[in-house]
Amino acid sequence: MDATFEALSEAELDRVAAVYAPLTQAVRGLVDATVRTRADDDVIQQARTTIEAVTRSLLSQRTRSSGVGYRVDGRPLPLSNAATGPCNPIAPPLVVHRDEDGRYRSEFVLGAAYEGPPGLVHGGVCALVLDQMLGEAASEGMTKPLFTGTITIRYLRGTPLGPLRAEAFIERSEGVKAFARGHLSDASGVAVEAEGVFVKPAWAREAE
Amino acid sequence: MDATFEALSEAELDRVAAVYAPLTQAVRGLVDATVRTRADDDVIQQARTTIEAVTRSLLSQRTRSSGVGYRVDGRPLPLSNAATGPCNPIAPPLVVHRDEDGRYRSEFVLGAAYEGPPGLVHGGVCALVLDQMLGEAASEGMTKPLFTGTITIRYLRGTPLGPLRAEAFIERSEGVKAFARGHLSDASGVAVEAEGVFVKPAWAREAE
Repeated sequence: MDATFEALSEAELDRVAAVYAPLTQAVRGLVDATVRTRADDDVIQQARTTIEAVTRSLLSQRTRSSGVGYRVDGRPLPLSNAATGPCNPIAPPLVVHRDEDGRYRSEFVLGAAYEGPPGLVHGGVCALVLDQMLGEAASEGMTKPLFTGTITIRYLRGTPLGPLRAEAFIERSEGVKAFARGHLSDASGVAVEAEGVFVKPAWAREAE
Repeated sequence: MDATFEALSEAELDRVAAVYAPLTQAVRGLVDATVRTRADDDVIQQARTTIEAVTRSLLSQRTRSSGVGYRVDGRPLPLSNAATGPCNPIAPPLVVHRDEDGRYRSEFVLGAAYEGPPGLVHGGVCALVLDQMLGEAASEGMTKPLFTGTITIRYLRGTPLGPLRAEAFIERSEGVKAFARGHLSDASGVAVEAEGVFVKPAWAREAE
């Protein structure tokens, strides 16, 4: 892996929370409105012009280099992660908690932007959520370097858009492999199950 | 499935292409800029205020009802699909072509908003792409109602952000099941493989 990491100071971390995360949250609202709007043409045209100007303003100064990760106190802080990133408008974002029993859990709401069949979450978005959750469990909250080897997603029924919860845990470990399992559920119970094999990369094995 | 479908006229379809799709494309640009920007606080604050006003304007008139799908000439047109929707800023979007050999192919670019590990596509985004591609193949371009039963994703190596291609095809069909296979690749070859079982829903079987 060619990724480089930059240490993020406490002050910079505060700035992410106070400045960049609220911008990202505003863009999430805009994404949702864009999917759902049926406003008149002049409103849409004006919105488009305004958004293009905002985009230019955001790129007119410094931008983040591609392939750079951030760490705080040695732990990776995935600012732009597509599932959990506080600075990524595509991320719901998942906020993942580790319970005392060692399980990783997250509660979140998926709106219109995550749709597949009408009214249901896209099966691939279910996979995105479960890939992240199983990865969190297998890597013990992203503190260990691990890559997904294989993941299998089993769809028991359609997952309705709206409030959902996901859960994952390590079932067993064998040498460089961790076997994780999890599910996605709504108020009626489990809708999607997943199991995955996660593998420690060679460079991390050599470093031990 | 409780989804209802609305027929979309040619005139409305033209309006989607001329008005809503360009707005969506502008929001995709904003999403990318939001992930990458490191602009000063005053620029970020101003952007946020402007975006919140645009969001209000988009929601001030009519909005699309949840759970409504659209059809053109009897074929579903997934306006807000999270992988292919021309009106969904989260969708790259995938534009899927059927080749003469019956394979479904798509070429697309995944930027910073689709990141997992630094510089690499999120494993769950690879799963989203492959779920959609296998679904397209299994349902013969979404002309047949099918749900994903199980999908298995095998990660051969990290997938770099940038230009990518995906491919899928039906391997075999058995009664109500279709077995599909596919992969995601960059210029160096295949990075992720997938296989899935897709099942015709009971209501579609009864209608035959």
